Amino acid sequence: MKKQFKLSLLALAGSALLATAVQANNFKESDDAIHYRQSAFGLIAHNFGDMGAMLKGKKPFDAEVFAMRAQNVAALSKLPAEGFVAGSDKGDTGALAKIWSDKADFDAKMSTFQDNAAKLAVAAQSDDKNAIKQAFMNTGKSCKGCHDIYKKD
Amino acid sequence: MKKQFKLSLLALAGSALLATAVQANNFKESDDAIHYRQSAFGLIAHNFGDMGAMLKGKKPFDAEVFAMRAQNVAALSKLPAEGFVAGSDKGDTGALAKIWSDKADFDAKMSTFQDNAAKLAVAAQSDDKNAIKQAFMNTGKSCKGCHDIYKKD
Repeated sequence: MKKQFKLSLLALAGSALLATAVQANNFKESDDAIHYRQSAFGLIAHNFGDMGAMLKGKKPFDAEVFAMRAQNVAALSKLPAEGFVAGSDKGDTGALAKIWSDKADFDAKMSTFQDNAAKLAVAAQSDDKNAIKQAFMNTGKSCKGCHDIYKKD
Repeated sequence: MKKQFKLSLLALAGSALLATAVQANNFKESDDAIHYRQSAFGLIAHNFGDMGAMLKGKKPFDAEVFAMRAQNVAALSKLPAEGFVAGSDKGDTGALAKIWSDKADFDAKMSTFQDNAAKLAVAAQSDDKNAIKQAFMNTGKSCKGCHDIYKKD
């Protein structure tokens, strides 16, 4: 009983603290879902971009930082899918309605991206620069492959 | 040589595709750093909030989803720190200047949050609901403990 009370208090405090109100369907409004996936993609872009800068020699290659970036991208790759709720092609988004009419293909491409990101995180633990570059390119292709079809220019 | 060329092409394509331009110092502008940490906190809030909803009985407890949420929060907990670059208390942010004047304490609190989030992810793999609730509360306290001191109301 006491524990439950403390938990309720914390939950209340949490509600006040946390920016995103979460409902049973996870997103209160379509815009929240859009914001969620865009936040995830933004974080992915930042981490992926930094890896690209290292591979292009725009900044020194730091194996530890690169591996951390790759881990971040692998973890983050799992997040955007949740944000593609039905009807969220309307609003401040580059997502095309095609995502929902071809949902199976979209989901498959998302899954390939997640797999490639996971492989990149594994490759980044090795000293094999060629394997790392290849895994990086494969991940980048997964991004581009999906954007070409399902994202506004 | 050929590989390098392909890599450059991909990197170029990546630059066009990805929203966040990444420089040697990781963020081009202070606002990018603010946006980065806010994106991470927003994703954390969403995942943490959903766990809270399950623990409060606002939605059915789903051990698999809960564990996924806890994993997400553990991974995401490592991201915001990078966004707290010097000078980024100016702008559209709730971050107080105190973060940078008391940086060691702030960093320690961030580290405690990361530890608690990691422990929550471990607890979420178990069937021990009390341990899960305790780990959830500890994580929530880490949020609140830092917000109380370093975040505008």
